[in-house]
Amino acid sequence: MFGAVIYGAGDVRFEERTDPTIIEPTDAVIRTVATCVCGSDLWRYRGIAPVNKPTPIGHEYVGIVEEVGDAVKNVKVGDFVVGGFTYSDNTCPVCRKGATANCQHGGGYDGCQAEKIRIPQADGTLVATPGMPDDDLVPSLLALSDVACTGWHAAVSGHVQPGDTVAVVGDGAVGLSAILASVQLGAGRVIAMSRHADRQKIARAFGATDIVEERGEEGMKKIQELTEGIGADVVLECVGTEGARQQAVDCLRPGGMIGVVGVPHGGIDIEQMFWGNKGIQGGVAPVRAYLEQLLQLVLERKIEPGKVFDLELPLSQVADAYKAMDERTATKVLLKP
Amino acid sequence: MFGAVIYGAGDVRFEERTDPTIIEPTDAVIRTVATCVCGSDLWRYRGIAPVNKPTPIGHEYVGIVEEVGDAVKNVKVGDFVVGGFTYSDNTCPVCRKGATANCQHGGGYDGCQAEKIRIPQADGTLVATPGMPDDDLVPSLLALSDVACTGWHAAVSGHVQPGDTVAVVGDGAVGLSAILASVQLGAGRVIAMSRHADRQKIARAFGATDIVEERGEEGMKKIQELTEGIGADVVLECVGTEGARQQAVDCLRPGGMIGVVGVPHGGIDIEQMFWGNKGIQGGVAPVRAYLEQLLQLVLERKIEPGKVFDLELPLSQVADAYKAMDERTATKVLLKP
Repeated sequence: MFGAVIYGAGDVRFEERTDPTIIEPTDAVIRTVATCVCGSDLWRYRGIAPVNKPTPIGHEYVGIVEEVGDAVKNVKVGDFVVGGFTYSDNTCPVCRKGATANCQHGGGYDGCQAEKIRIPQADGTLVATPGMPDDDLVPSLLALSDVACTGWHAAVSGHVQPGDTVAVVGDGAVGLSAILASVQLGAGRVIAMSRHADRQKIARAFGATDIVEERGEEGMKKIQELTEGIGADVVLECVGTEGARQQAVDCLRPGGMIGVVGVPHGGIDIEQMFWGNKGIQGGVAPVRAYLEQLLQLVLERKIEPGKVFDLELPLSQVADAYKAMDERTATKVLLKP
Repeated sequence: MFGAVIYGAGDVRFEERTDPTIIEPTDAVIRTVATCVCGSDLWRYRGIAPVNKPTPIGHEYVGIVEEVGDAVKNVKVGDFVVGGFTYSDNTCPVCRKGATANCQHGGGYDGCQAEKIRIPQADGTLVATPGMPDDDLVPSLLALSDVACTGWHAAVSGHVQPGDTVAVVGDGAVGLSAILASVQLGAGRVIAMSRHADRQKIARAFGATDIVEERGEEGMKKIQELTEGIGADVVLECVGTEGARQQAVDCLRPGGMIGVVGVPHGGIDIEQMFWGNKGIQGGVAPVRAYLEQLLQLVLERKIEPGKVFDLELPLSQVADAYKAMDERTATKVLLKP
């Protein structure tokens, strides 16, 4: 089979790889229906994170089950399945607390931007749709594999309550998904911090009530103007840079909460947080804990998280997908084998 | 009148001070019924925080209203009152969110270890009891001024949910109060990290189900043994040192939450937090937001937060009170004029 391999900064190749097989009895192998490129893949593509050797890449997928190990009970050959960007057994003490991204027997995949994928812990990771979904639902189902659940996790970690004013830092696919999640959790006002017209449009479609284009101190002032001068009840930090983190702290009201899903690059001013009674929670999204609820909302067409995909390419053009996202000519690129 | 003044490390004096008067129409002046020494006062007494000039000290009190400004409506001369260790108007946009410690018109007092105290923003700060309370309730009413509400804030900030396993780092009066709060909020198991027999006794009286005497890695292992190997759902950090903060992170399960009320001296490992999906919230306690609820519980004798006082001295012996707390011969000292 063929799949994407990253060789270094700016160098992703579509090349022949060994077909995945069942290794553990808890494994499944799926034939990919759709996959995509994640903002976090760009850390390596941009040379910010190292690439020590050619490495299969990608961690988002929907597909059809081709083969299952002897121990797999919850999915069967032919099922259309979606799974999270980390696998988990969904039975260990940590998973039972809902923190499936930190599963004691979890981990990452061997490159999902590929025609076939081995899924360890298939029973705890995959959820099958009832029957074959309509084609037009595929982008939203694929979004559940990471970006929609990661945005959801930001809002849950920020403890968004009905009526809250929520500000979202970051207008990438995750930030946009965090807007959708905040609206679903009952936020009264959702402020998208975005300076890109195309992304603002998706933000509005997801339910953002206000757009703030300014950043830094100007951005903070704009948020304060919208919140009686005190800042947002909740800020969702969906970028990961130190600047974004500081923006979140500055835009938050005393006693408020930051939901964070941007992988941290830099620290946080814990004294400013303490004296302002400002909290922070978040991390790698426990997709499996949210998957069934969000899948239901997608199947009932109550949410359409797939709107974050604004470009579709054949998987063989995966290098162009990286280029488009790196140059911001696309928000998120869907790839089909 | 007489009151306590700190001159430097180890040097607290009981001396004559100017009688407080009404300065703003929103002020009240109270005659102190009881006051006490706080763990946070010890930072200066121990020379860790600087004392630049002789400074009146103390911030906890219950008393009888002696005089009110023209604008004061909620309390009247003769009322028995309790107020928080910071004053707040309880009407500004921040207070309306419940974050009264961060009130836009709030601040601290001019030394409450004194015979009389000026209370700015009396309407927003003070709560009167219905009639004169029984003498034996005074310690618990005084505890509401800081320590009981600070412990409560730790538990609220840690988002303690019914059934949770909560570990409390710090067995000072605040840590002990955090145990009481966790039990009241429905925690299923409350683990006190304490190595002092007298404090363990209070911890048990407040409802602690388990005591862990070990600290550091050994302490973490003991907590794990009690929690299926994963750590506590919530850890309440009631000390403020970097070691205590790290202890809290290490004893917390993935996806858990730290409630913090120890004034931070040192940073936090934000990467360890993120990858473990561990959150933190807290700060200076918004006493006014909790005061009415907790006052009711005290008056109904459903809680007895005053148990943290294990020594009572005349206010004139305030220097001995500091010495006793510094040397840990007392957990918390109550002072009566």
